[in-house]
Amino acid sequence: MIEVLHKIDSVFTIDCVIFGFDEGELKILMIERNEEPYKNWWALPGYYVGQDEGIDHAAERILYELTGLRDIYMEQLYTFGDVHRHPNGRVITVAYYAMIRLNGQKDLKPVTNYARKAFWAPVNELPELAYDHSQIFKKSLEKVRRKISYQPIAFELLPEKFTLTQLQHLYEVILNKKLDKRNFRKKMLNYGILRELNEKQRGVSYRAAKLYKFDRKKYMKLFQKELSFSR
Amino acid sequence: MIEVLHKIDSVFTIDCVIFGFDEGELKILMIERNEEPYKNWWALPGYYVGQDEGIDHAAERILYELTGLRDIYMEQLYTFGDVHRHPNGRVITVAYYAMIRLNGQKDLKPVTNYARKAFWAPVNELPELAYDHSQIFKKSLEKVRRKISYQPIAFELLPEKFTLTQLQHLYEVILNKKLDKRNFRKKMLNYGILRELNEKQRGVSYRAAKLYKFDRKKYMKLFQKELSFSR
Repeated sequence: MIEVLHKIDSVFTIDCVIFGFDEGELKILMIERNEEPYKNWWALPGYYVGQDEGIDHAAERILYELTGLRDIYMEQLYTFGDVHRHPNGRVITVAYYAMIRLNGQKDLKPVTNYARKAFWAPVNELPELAYDHSQIFKKSLEKVRRKISYQPIAFELLPEKFTLTQLQHLYEVILNKKLDKRNFRKKMLNYGILRELNEKQRGVSYRAAKLYKFDRKKYMKLFQKELSFSR
Repeated sequence: MIEVLHKIDSVFTIDCVIFGFDEGELKILMIERNEEPYKNWWALPGYYVGQDEGIDHAAERILYELTGLRDIYMEQLYTFGDVHRHPNGRVITVAYYAMIRLNGQKDLKPVTNYARKAFWAPVNELPELAYDHSQIFKKSLEKVRRKISYQPIAFELLPEKFTLTQLQHLYEVILNKKLDKRNFRKKMLNYGILRELNEKQRGVSYRAAKLYKFDRKKYMKLFQKELSFSR
C-alpha cells in the first residue's frame, strides 16, 4: 500500500477518534505504530482508504484491522487537508468519531501488523502523537464538548441505573471542569428527565446514594425541545 | 487540470454549498457548467484542489473563481467519498457551506471559464444537478435545518430591524413548514431576546407592524444556556 504514494499525487486516509467513558474517566483509543515514519509512536488508529472502497466502509475496516473493534457507529468529524500535514506527501485524512461506554470487556487486538498494539489511554495523559494526530485529537475533543450540550450522549455513556454523582462526573469529565453540585442537581432534577428509583447503590460502605434512570422519552423530548427554538 | 485524472488514482475536489436568504426566500448558489461531463448542467460551485493548496484555501479560491464571491466564511460540512460518485474515477469531495444574507447587490461573475454563469436559485426549484450534487445539496439543507435550532444563525440573516412576521418567515423558510403564529410569537417574546423598538415598518399601506431588534447579548446567552445542559 505504501508504494501507492509514489505513483499518485494525493492519498486519502481515515483516522478514527474513539472516545471511551470508563468508570468516570474519559479515554481515547490509541495504537502504537509499527511502521516508519513514527515507528513506535502513539497514534490514532488510521490508514489508507482502498481504491475501491467507500470512505464509511473504509473507516469500519481500518478501525477493525488496527484495533479489533467492530460494530461501532462512527460519524464523520472533520477532514484535515493542510499541505504539509504528512511527511509522505499530500495526504488528506477524514476523521471519524465515536463515543462509547467501556465496560472493561472491550478486547483490543490489532489484526494487521501496522499496529503493534491498541489500547485505551486517558485523554489527559497523552504524549505528542504521530503526524498531526495531536491536533486532530484536540479538535475532536472540542467537538465532543460542544456535542454534550445539544446531543443526548449521556444516555449512551452511563449504566442503566446511576447516581447523581455519576451523572455529574460524566459532565465534569467531558467538559474538564468542576461543576457546582447543588446547582447541577437542581438543574438536572428540574428537567424532569430523571426517574428516581426505589433502589440504592450497592457495595458502598455507608450513605449509599439513590439510583436514577433516564426517562428516555422525556430525555429525548427535552433535547428536541431545547433545540427546537422554532416550535 | 483534467489530465491529472489519468495520472493519479484519486482526486480531491471541493464543492461549495452557499445558502442565501433573500427577502424571505431561501436560495442556493449554482453554476452552469461549461465542461463535459455534465456540460450545461446546474451544479454546486466546485473544482479540483491544487497539489500545493490546503483545502480551506482551495474552498475560497474555487468559490471565487466560479462565482466571483469572496470573503465568505465557510465551514466544512461533510466529505463525500463513495466509490462511484464521479464518472471520471475516484473523486472525493469536501463540501464547504455558508449561509449569508442577500441584499440583491451580490454580484456574481465567474472569473474562469469552467462555469458559464453563476446565479442564485430558490431551493425549492432545483432541477437534477450534475454528479451527486443533488444529494450533497439535500444533506446540506438537512444540516442547516438542524443548525437553526442550536446556532444563532437568524442573527446573521435578518436586517438589523425586523418585524415578527419576518422572523417567523425566516424560520418557516428554512424549516420548510408553517409555524403557528400565536405560538411562535409567544415563544419568541418569552425568550427575552427581542427588543421592541419605538418604530414601525415603513412603506406598507396600512397596519404597519412594530419593528424589533435582537438583544445580541441576551440572544447569545440564550443559545449558550439552552445548550449548556451542563451548567
